Amino acid sequence: MTNVLTPVSSAAEHGDATVDVAALGELLLGKWAHVRLAARELAGLPELHKIEGLSHTEHRRRVFEQLGLLVQKNGVHRAFPKRLGGSDDHGGNVAGFEELVLADPSLQIKGGVQWGLFGSAVLHLGTEEHQDKWLPGIMNLEIPGCFAMTEIGHGSDVASIATTATYDEVTQEFVINTPFRAAWKEFIGNAAVDGLAAVVFAQLITKGVNHGVHAFYVELRDPASKEFLPGIQGLDDNIKGGLNGIDNGRLAFANVRIPRTNLLNRYGNVAEDGSYSSPIASPGRRFFTMLGTLVQGRVSLNGAAVAASKVALKIAIQYATERRQFNAASDTEEVVLLDYQRHQRRLLPLLATTYAAAFAHEELLVKFDGVFSGAQDTDEDRQDLETLAAALKSLTTWHALDTLQECREACGGSGFMVENRFTSLRADLDIYATFEGDNTVLLQLVAKRLLADYSKEFGNLDFGVLARFVVGQAADLTLNKTGLRQVAQSIADTGSAQKSAKALKDEDTQRQLLAERVQSMVAEIASALKEAAKLPKEQGAAIFNDNQDALIEAARAHAELLQWEAFTTALGKVEDAGTKRVLTLLRDVFGLGLIEKHLDWYLMNGRISMQRARTLAPYLNRLLAKARPHALDLVDAFGYGPEHLRATIASGIERERQDEAREYFRNLRASSDGPVDEKILIQRAKASEKKK
Amino acid sequence: MTNVLTPVSSAAEHGDATVDVAALGELLLGKWAHVRLAARELAGLPELHKIEGLSHTEHRRRVFEQLGLLVQKNGVHRAFPKRLGGSDDHGGNVAGFEELVLADPSLQIKGGVQWGLFGSAVLHLGTEEHQDKWLPGIMNLEIPGCFAMTEIGHGSDVASIATTATYDEVTQEFVINTPFRAAWKEFIGNAAVDGLAAVVFAQLITKGVNHGVHAFYVELRDPASKEFLPGIQGLDDNIKGGLNGIDNGRLAFANVRIPRTNLLNRYGNVAEDGSYSSPIASPGRRFFTMLGTLVQGRVSLNGAAVAASKVALKIAIQYATERRQFNAASDTEEVVLLDYQRHQRRLLPLLATTYAAAFAHEELLVKFDGVFSGAQDTDEDRQDLETLAAALKSLTTWHALDTLQECREACGGSGFMVENRFTSLRADLDIYATFEGDNTVLLQLVAKRLLADYSKEFGNLDFGVLARFVVGQAADLTLNKTGLRQVAQSIADTGSAQKSAKALKDEDTQRQLLAERVQSMVAEIASALKEAAKLPKEQGAAIFNDNQDALIEAARAHAELLQWEAFTTALGKVEDAGTKRVLTLLRDVFGLGLIEKHLDWYLMNGRISMQRARTLAPYLNRLLAKARPHALDLVDAFGYGPEHLRATIASGIERERQDEAREYFRNLRASSDGPVDEKILIQRAKASEKKK
Repeated sequence: MTNVLTPVSSAAEHGDATVDVAALGELLLGKWAHVRLAARELAGLPELHKIEGLSHTEHRRRVFEQLGLLVQKNGVHRAFPKRLGGSDDHGGNVAGFEELVLADPSLQIKGGVQWGLFGSAVLHLGTEEHQDKWLPGIMNLEIPGCFAMTEIGHGSDVASIATTATYDEVTQEFVINTPFRAAWKEFIGNAAVDGLAAVVFAQLITKGVNHGVHAFYVELRDPASKEFLPGIQGLDDNIKGGLNGIDNGRLAFANVRIPRTNLLNRYGNVAEDGSYSSPIASPGRRFFTMLGTLVQGRVSLNGAAVAASKVALKIAIQYATERRQFNAASDTEEVVLLDYQRHQRRLLPLLATTYAAAFAHEELLVKFDGVFSGAQDTDEDRQDLETLAAALKSLTTWHALDTLQECREACGGSGFMVENRFTSLRADLDIYATFEGDNTVLLQLVAKRLLADYSKEFGNLDFGVLARFVVGQAADLTLNKTGLRQVAQSIADTGSAQKSAKALKDEDTQRQLLAERVQSMVAEIASALKEAAKLPKEQGAAIFNDNQDALIEAARAHAELLQWEAFTTALGKVEDAGTKRVLTLLRDVFGLGLIEKHLDWYLMNGRISMQRARTLAPYLNRLLAKARPHALDLVDAFGYGPEHLRATIASGIERERQDEAREYFRNLRASSDGPVDEKILIQRAKASEKKK
Repeated sequence: MTNVLTPVSSAAEHGDATVDVAALGELLLGKWAHVRLAARELAGLPELHKIEGLSHTEHRRRVFEQLGLLVQKNGVHRAFPKRLGGSDDHGGNVAGFEELVLADPSLQIKGGVQWGLFGSAVLHLGTEEHQDKWLPGIMNLEIPGCFAMTEIGHGSDVASIATTATYDEVTQEFVINTPFRAAWKEFIGNAAVDGLAAVVFAQLITKGVNHGVHAFYVELRDPASKEFLPGIQGLDDNIKGGLNGIDNGRLAFANVRIPRTNLLNRYGNVAEDGSYSSPIASPGRRFFTMLGTLVQGRVSLNGAAVAASKVALKIAIQYATERRQFNAASDTEEVVLLDYQRHQRRLLPLLATTYAAAFAHEELLVKFDGVFSGAQDTDEDRQDLETLAAALKSLTTWHALDTLQECREACGGSGFMVENRFTSLRADLDIYATFEGDNTVLLQLVAKRLLADYSKEFGNLDFGVLARFVVGQAADLTLNKTGLRQVAQSIADTGSAQKSAKALKDEDTQRQLLAERVQSMVAEIASALKEAAKLPKEQGAAIFNDNQDALIEAARAHAELLQWEAFTTALGKVEDAGTKRVLTLLRDVFGLGLIEKHLDWYLMNGRISMQRARTLAPYLNRLLAKARPHALDLVDAFGYGPEHLRATIASGIERERQDEAREYFRNLRASSDGPVDEKILIQRAKASEKKK
């Protein structure tokens, strides 16, 4: 066993490292490397940075001005059509947006509201006529706008929103109405101050029939006076836990009339006479298709959460390789934090998970680009994309919060100073766990897909959350990128004569253990639910509810497997032998970390023996100690400059201070003037006592 | 199995409940009920409440003024001597302080700095002369002051601070000096703006001998001009992740001279001629005794974290019993959030843990009062108090952060609005995890005590964190309130013929499982460390480091056991049969939750069989469903009024809105005007198709 407390010199950390930092950096930048680099250049500009301590009104003004700068600098139009000045580059657009989180999450999300939600709705739900009419103003920020979907009464359950858009054949207008307080649009970005217009989601009613949720373009404020137009009411959400550069607010509509042609009618139209038509016959599929554009938000949040985790780990690991505390191993030298086992346990598994999340995100982005560019745009592609985005967004946004918090605590009081970024980023990213789909709800959608893949009888489950999204026909049971994998049901532990955890280092063993767990959890739930589908709704729902927690855990297990697979796939792309060795070590930390996290399951289901299980923690500790000398390289590969980190404790100041202190004490020991410790005098006295 | 999705009516929640809310409230108020009620009255005053969105400078001014109000209202002098206008009531003083967190955590902590640290240091480390000279001004806020202990270079490792206080025999002065940048006092409350004086901790050097850390009273600013006195430098810490009502800052001393008599000399004195004397011969014990007063801060934080957890759970559970989402069980009625299994899983175990933490805190407070009143003040009492405070403070402050976050997410977007308290409280309490002793360090101190109790050979362990506190002789191995319990090493699972988790409901079985785990973990570590004590320091430290993670987990297990014991002891005080039944259920949720959390350990050490383990999660789910109807009573027993909760979503507004919405749809269904769903038309068409 290596003596992990032997101080690792700076030279060893950098010079002898076997990681090719530059090449690894390239791999992490992925397919849209050039866009990411350009966006990072933007994100490095001081005028785009968050200034801490602004009032929320000052912060809002600053962020609005920053959106203007983004327009000027051509940073935000990649997803829009070429004919309007964009570049029809959906993957690149999201890749660029993600990086803006480094400047200020409020900037990222306010930009996301304007171009990713409001603009995107006009782009994807409207016709070319709509696009030509409104997109130029949306793109250049002449029309700041809202994406008015969520209501106080319904967030993730979009199908239940209560705002109505009733067609009036006489005037050929839609009448937008908020029937009660719970139907007020709520948490709407750009609503409190800046929004001149909104895409409003409402139940489309014509000729006495409710055709479900559709999107309508509604003007909100007079462009000159900025006053609300007649019939429109608003409230300011004021101060939030974070993202205070965004003017969230509430909106209500008192029978507001808009032209018939303001219906964004790509997937559903109302003719002058009030007759409804749609290219998609099934109301469920139509709803799913219209809401499909929302997936872009989830993809962006996934990427932004990865970026924030990277920044946090770079700062905390830099500090942990400089800061010394407690002289455990020597009377004069204190130990560097990252040499402590506990510190490795705190930070390195988070680093491994961040790598897994980053590689998985790249796969998600490629999938997203395939669907949105039209290159791979079958129903199944769209469903895969939905499932993948839901699974990954949930895990990654929670991971970012955990990482930011652990990093903050690992840096002690310094971690709490806002100048060191953690607390500010954490406050801003907090809401990522519940917006663009509450993580708990999203994981249930993933579970629904797993069940559908497992057996066709679950294809049309209709309880709670799952009733809201129709996933269509069950896919087949072969190996499937996002759905359930069928794997051999063999008991992994019998396969190996060696009874220590070392056997778990084998890639196939890791895969088998992780995949079997998903498979087995889904099978168990499916068996419990088999009755539910046949029973009356209320009884079925009760059985379903009894398995809700297990369902969510199965979805989580599936998402973890997806991340592990992405990490393993990425390993295959690494050519440099040293980098590959270190990255494989990190992948093993991730994989074995998952197995340790769920060790109770592996034990009680006979997948891992008691004997092997007991060796897992010490084995993982040894892997962490092996990874420790490469930690700095692994965070340096993220490629952030000081303009992105902007954290005092990552500036090298800690090393300077500690060096200065050690020098002081070295000189004191060398001189004859230095005071002697009372303790040492006592020891000497005792020693001379003994001699007598 | 009960159908947990059957809506529970408001009447059932309140009227038929078997919990005697008032009596349970009394039990929770504990020994210092009258002080708590008086402090809650203070905490309910609008002029003491946090106003969100103030700049940090405005917030600081407001909190400073609030301290003046606390003085006027006689809220903060209970711990001081009667002869100076206090009431010598240490337990009551802390009980009162804790409740102030409900008004504004900045107010609580700034008050803690002034009276609990600065004033307390003069009280406990000074002589009567010091007390008479300075305490009146400290008590009435004429002398706002600092507790200048922590340095940039050393936080939890207080023994390593580098500020020096060198005695000059010629002038009979101490010379306070900051030798390098890492020795600047850092994160010091009252340092940036308000502090006129400070108790400065420094290495006392006289006649060429360093006698270790002592406390000195040092004037900082001119009372009139508020300018720093000559030789004193300061920096403002500016904005932090929370607690921005406190003016934290840095302080440095350039050979600042203070009178000899400004040494707070209760435990160590320097005579005019420079000779040092102390009533405590051992420098280690002397250091431990002087730092012993710090325990008060940990006790207060423990109580404040309990209070914040209670507030959060009252708000989130109130909302969860009103908010409806997704119509899982019926086509027209949506389900109340708390009827979902996942929501029960999210909130009710946190509620159970909060009860455990509250009962454990009361025991800690009684112990604290015993020691500080002098009623039970042996060395062993002090050590027990230290261990108990370290163990509980760590778990409780982390628990508060987890609870605030889970409650915030469980309330979705509304949870993110600052008006609903979670995000603001979480930001303020974040630092509780690392100040007054970093939780990770504190748990290692607990582990040290466990090892010392286990075997005398570990009584003087000298690695890392543990080197810093000498815990004296090992206690004996009998049942001991804070140290290690000796329990039979029998394997729990063989004792019961019944193979389901239901057997784990038995109180003795829970105790045995929890206690055996601590015992066994400590024994295992002790065996691994046996060699370490005999080896040279560096090698010993390496072995120690290899077990650091396990050590911390053992300490955590011990703290969990302490909480479980406190909960179980409290059950014995409940007389009302219904309350006892519900509270026992909640204790079982807590106990079985701990066993589930550590199920891997129980499995791989053969304490629980695979068969029984597989029944644990479903069994716990059933307990949660049983506890669910009592959830509102259990949070109502916390006894907070709207003036403490101050959260819009806990005001009943959600129920009003949802009732209004349901009424609207009920009317719509009853009328013939309501639109028909397209889906229903399609179903009807299909049905008539079939008939043909």
